[in-house]
Amino acid sequence: MGGGHGLHATLTALRRVTDDVTAVVTVADDGGSSGRLRRELQDLLPPGDLRKAMAALAGEDEASQRWTSLFKHRFGGTGALAGHAVGNLVIAGLLEQLGDPVAVLDLTSRLLGVKGRVLPMSNDPLDIEADVMGLDEDVTDVRRIRGQVAIATTPGLVQRIRLTAPNGRPAGCPEAVQAVLDADVVVLGPGSWFTSVLPHLLVPDLLDALVRTRAKKVLVLNLVPQPGETAGFSPERHLDVVCEHAPELKVDAVIADVDSVPTPDRLTRAASALGARTHLAKIAAPEAAERHDPEALAGCLRQVVEETGVGGTSPWR
Amino acid sequence: MGGGHGLHATLTALRRVTDDVTAVVTVADDGGSSGRLRRELQDLLPPGDLRKAMAALAGEDEASQRWTSLFKHRFGGTGALAGHAVGNLVIAGLLEQLGDPVAVLDLTSRLLGVKGRVLPMSNDPLDIEADVMGLDEDVTDVRRIRGQVAIATTPGLVQRIRLTAPNGRPAGCPEAVQAVLDADVVVLGPGSWFTSVLPHLLVPDLLDALVRTRAKKVLVLNLVPQPGETAGFSPERHLDVVCEHAPELKVDAVIADVDSVPTPDRLTRAASALGARTHLAKIAAPEAAERHDPEALAGCLRQVVEETGVGGTSPWR
Repeated sequence: MGGGHGLHATLTALRRVTDDVTAVVTVADDGGSSGRLRRELQDLLPPGDLRKAMAALAGEDEASQRWTSLFKHRFGGTGALAGHAVGNLVIAGLLEQLGDPVAVLDLTSRLLGVKGRVLPMSNDPLDIEADVMGLDEDVTDVRRIRGQVAIATTPGLVQRIRLTAPNGRPAGCPEAVQAVLDADVVVLGPGSWFTSVLPHLLVPDLLDALVRTRAKKVLVLNLVPQPGETAGFSPERHLDVVCEHAPELKVDAVIADVDSVPTPDRLTRAASALGARTHLAKIAAPEAAERHDPEALAGCLRQVVEETGVGGTSPWR
Repeated sequence: MGGGHGLHATLTALRRVTDDVTAVVTVADDGGSSGRLRRELQDLLPPGDLRKAMAALAGEDEASQRWTSLFKHRFGGTGALAGHAVGNLVIAGLLEQLGDPVAVLDLTSRLLGVKGRVLPMSNDPLDIEADVMGLDEDVTDVRRIRGQVAIATTPGLVQRIRLTAPNGRPAGCPEAVQAVLDADVVVLGPGSWFTSVLPHLLVPDLLDALVRTRAKKVLVLNLVPQPGETAGFSPERHLDVVCEHAPELKVDAVIADVDSVPTPDRLTRAASALGARTHLAKIAAPEAAERHDPEALAGCLRQVVEETGVGGTSPWR
């Protein structure tokens, strides 16, 4: 569960561990190509993060790779299409035609040879709203900020987020809810904490499934605080905001990069509040400290799953 | 060989006759979604007619039909994407990525389950220029008009057309040239006479192949004159302009709808000048007199081929 580059990293790692992955993807993006499509084609589910998740699970044969590469391709030039990813337009066209996002994703996933499944967290496009402190002269004043881009880039301190849906309460995608209930392991994060990770906990159907599922629940922390939404956040502060947004949620394990945790005992304490053990390992990519190394993350996930134990006939290898 | 709706009609008929069809498609369109893409993405081959040709030859299974339907789908709304066919955007993206139009068409044809092959008449986008009479006070003055849309909608009388290419002489797509040389039967028309049919004769490589091929050559006339480019043109005038643009070309048969030919003897005379026999039959669709009935056109093509005779091991059935 996640969105954007963070989810791409988890999925790239998870496909090394199992063929049976379901990606559950945030649908609150309002920036870039997805944001333009949302504004132009009313009520459109933002396609960008869904496309990125499919790319992470795409087949390795030539045809799958060819279409995956096209889906990622952004139009050049300086015109109306410039910057739009072709895959976003294909998904948008199919959403206009078919309506049902799950059918659209199953169809495009077949084209890209996706191993596993990609689902939206909700079939409706959602919006994020945040209470942000430090934007006014009196730095304790709290202001309501709307939209993923605005929150992700705020110079203030995000206190709390909420989701707003076109018809009031955000509804979970039924297939995604079922996937959480049926899972052996649920991995949440890494990613933009307030705009990609926490939104999953604010869809009541999904949170309920996360609380009820017998799956092992693993939280993967970010390697570095994100300028804007989590600037200055310590690893343990990331866990605290999970507690604050979903007090009823228990987690089995917290994975963090050993070099990104300055005070391990504080992290352990914060993890305990969630019911989780901490697993520290070297999981940053050697070439880019802000990215997870897929092989290392896969190894860590494998180990955590072994230690926490997974019931039934597990497809984990 | 043709373009637009006319080519779609021929291909829909031909697929009833043989599995081994190659569509050779004009690439001088500058209107609608294709025109917008050409203007926005410099030097882009206009994708619309290529897409329509693929649709006519698309597979009948569910997946092929699903993608064909998406390719045809035009974005709604009132924004930057409104009116763009999704397939045009997919082809445009692939052209940006791969460069080679033949590779792009082979790839998209596989997606759409195309029976046969779709090729551009040239790998370069071309432009049409026409000498048009009757636009000025002195109605014998001849003016040069540029562009497919301008010519197709001119209130004047088109005298003659020329093709202009980015690098001077328009080059034939090598695979299209070879297809003409290897064919048992070549069908030219119906379609917008000056902007979809005649352009094939103005690509020197293609005309040369048409002159040299041992294939039977069949011209299919339009059912009604087209407002604008062929307003007021009699069936025989259509043949005369073929003669005027490609005096060296001989044709084996001319097919026309019996109800669209007011003076059959004049048509026979004009056909003779091209070396062709005329075949008159009821080939208009019962529900729309300006459209060919695929079954009737297929029957007529089958008969013409039988009468003129096709050498070798023919795939015609």
